[in-house]
Amino acid sequence: MGLVVQKFGGTSVANIEKIKNVAGKAIKEKNAGHDVIVVLSAMAGETNRLIDLAHSAADNPDEREYDSLISTGEQVTITLLSIVLNAMGYRSRSLLGFQVKIKTDKAYKKARIEVIDTELIEQELKNGTIVVVAGFQGVDQENNITTLGRGGSDTSAVALAAALNAERCDIYTDVDGVYTTDPNICAKARRLDKISYDEMLEMAMTGAKVLQPRSVEMAKKYNVPVYVKSTFSDEGGTLVTKEDGEMEKEVLSGVTYDRDQAKITVVHVPDKPGIAASLFSPLSERNISVDMIIQNASAQGFTDLTFTVSKKDMKEAQRMIEAAAKDIGAQSVEVDDDVAKVSIIGVGMVSHSGVAAKMFKAMADEGINIMMISTSEIKISCVIQRKYTELAVTVLHDAFHLEKKS
Amino acid sequence: MGLVVQKFGGTSVANIEKIKNVAGKAIKEKNAGHDVIVVLSAMAGETNRLIDLAHSAADNPDEREYDSLISTGEQVTITLLSIVLNAMGYRSRSLLGFQVKIKTDKAYKKARIEVIDTELIEQELKNGTIVVVAGFQGVDQENNITTLGRGGSDTSAVALAAALNAERCDIYTDVDGVYTTDPNICAKARRLDKISYDEMLEMAMTGAKVLQPRSVEMAKKYNVPVYVKSTFSDEGGTLVTKEDGEMEKEVLSGVTYDRDQAKITVVHVPDKPGIAASLFSPLSERNISVDMIIQNASAQGFTDLTFTVSKKDMKEAQRMIEAAAKDIGAQSVEVDDDVAKVSIIGVGMVSHSGVAAKMFKAMADEGINIMMISTSEIKISCVIQRKYTELAVTVLHDAFHLEKKS
Repeated sequence: MGLVVQKFGGTSVANIEKIKNVAGKAIKEKNAGHDVIVVLSAMAGETNRLIDLAHSAADNPDEREYDSLISTGEQVTITLLSIVLNAMGYRSRSLLGFQVKIKTDKAYKKARIEVIDTELIEQELKNGTIVVVAGFQGVDQENNITTLGRGGSDTSAVALAAALNAERCDIYTDVDGVYTTDPNICAKARRLDKISYDEMLEMAMTGAKVLQPRSVEMAKKYNVPVYVKSTFSDEGGTLVTKEDGEMEKEVLSGVTYDRDQAKITVVHVPDKPGIAASLFSPLSERNISVDMIIQNASAQGFTDLTFTVSKKDMKEAQRMIEAAAKDIGAQSVEVDDDVAKVSIIGVGMVSHSGVAAKMFKAMADEGINIMMISTSEIKISCVIQRKYTELAVTVLHDAFHLEKKS
Repeated sequence: MGLVVQKFGGTSVANIEKIKNVAGKAIKEKNAGHDVIVVLSAMAGETNRLIDLAHSAADNPDEREYDSLISTGEQVTITLLSIVLNAMGYRSRSLLGFQVKIKTDKAYKKARIEVIDTELIEQELKNGTIVVVAGFQGVDQENNITTLGRGGSDTSAVALAAALNAERCDIYTDVDGVYTTDPNICAKARRLDKISYDEMLEMAMTGAKVLQPRSVEMAKKYNVPVYVKSTFSDEGGTLVTKEDGEMEKEVLSGVTYDRDQAKITVVHVPDKPGIAASLFSPLSERNISVDMIIQNASAQGFTDLTFTVSKKDMKEAQRMIEAAAKDIGAQSVEVDDDVAKVSIIGVGMVSHSGVAAKMFKAMADEGINIMMISTSEIKISCVIQRKYTELAVTVLHDAFHLEKKS
């Protein structure tokens, strides 16, 4: 039997009782004959507590120090789990990023894993050890501690599964799988048994919080089967895997929303080559991700340019864009964070026509104005006023009959 | 100007306000032209919180995991201080044990520093960086995290001062220096301006909590001048340094006490070669320190053997000694943790006669029974009933007129 990587999020390790429950799940796989690696997040709330501490020390905490600070949360949970496992008679060792040698780039707060040294882990697995690895963290070439961004433990788990050629990667969370939409908003939401990497990626990118997008990209790249399961129940679960014929029969897999959006419009921009580069290069240098970008058709040599960023990046983006706008002779910069993005996702979109029209009509019928639209092969996103988020999700779920498996 | 190493204990970094105060002290030395290394403990109470967590996970937590767990407290304080310093416009970097490469042996919970790699720190100091190092922690040859035992941050600081040839090592604490005895017990206690390494070592070994004994040994070995100062006041301070003529004029420097003692007696031991080794080897293998050892004169081929250990080691020591006692044919093992050790310390003892007699008489006059006596060139310790601790300290302080500088 092969290797299983299990990842548990913050609510699954929120206290000692829950950590003992996690130990039980690891032991179950071990006793079934698998090699086991467990990847943990910090206790629920702990990372936020550490972030608050950092911000009480300075408005803009030094990023190197910030990452080293917030990485301590995982060190606490992995050592506690190893203590529990050893006390239960199972050999276990916790390993931090620097001990495994999970090497990342130097982009503090959102570092990317470059390479994982598998030697120490392989040796421990050979000794029968249940290896417990700190999620969310790595080290750069100079041994500075880096963190992988929110949800980074998912990526740690999938990266370890890929590097060590695991049979599967189980992502345990507080819901029992991936749903057609957020059940808290739409009572008719249905759990999916299976979803393709691409759809899962679009869902994660457009607001579904169940998996970090980068972890899905990585799972796709290395073809790691990922199971999303509940820590607190043995029922349910969703398999994230390669696309198959069955999936294409469905028009849509899900409806997502993202309230963490801010819209920035640069008004009356001279329409000439190099303008977009002047505006967006400074943002990319500061590692600010731009999501949707819309440029209106040019009129008399001028155009308006609108894009969205994450809310937390809004102020910094605004400051930089205002400077750049001045340089290029734009008229003004307008900012709006009272918006949300609603998206529909499905590989079936490719072979079904009229999907976009149906989406726009469903929203129009409810009087929801669409401010921005962006599409990919398997996704359509609309930026709307924030207050319509729940309504839009519900009417779209209904319009495409997502409550029923087709 | 040379390098200054500053060490701050848990009460000095208990919250962000206090950490900002520490930043001020580091900046003061930096602005005076010194290179500065700051060594920090965890926030007051944090290490105990982590220890409690470990013990809630298992009765006997795995020691490797335990050390990795409790080392997180320092990671929080050093990163916060570096965040504060950077925000105040001073370049600062926090460094963990593995980043500096503070290499220790493998004795978890009480590891000893073997070698400190100075390269990275020297390079940072050259760049004008205020280097902030995690106290209490190191890594062994395999990069497992180790901790140096209670008060270990003192040792980290002195070891760094020694390795980097610092001008001095300032140990900031919540008292303003080293006193003739505990001012909480004896109102007449007097702060010493200066004390020799040997006296400080004896005081630390016999119960004075102001410095970890190992840090004093190391300061003596490498001739590092150590100042004990208050974090919260610029007054006072005690210099721990080489012996000089002035010190010898004083008969005594101080009176100490230690309530963390347990007495174990092995009754009716066959008096033959190798017996002591059979009894004490198992303890030393388990890293249990034995303090005083008394063996009565042999009568008819049998003797009683009494020794003291730290209270926390008592149960384990008792278990091992009971097994060993059975093997060597001793009659029984008796245990008593209702005891304390009271000691008088002074380099002047060597040249003044009658010191011991005066000590015993002062205690006898108060009806305090002495159970065990042990002496060194500059120290006399007595084990007495615990309830007499304060009384013994006060009468000894009076008998030797320690309230007055002679």
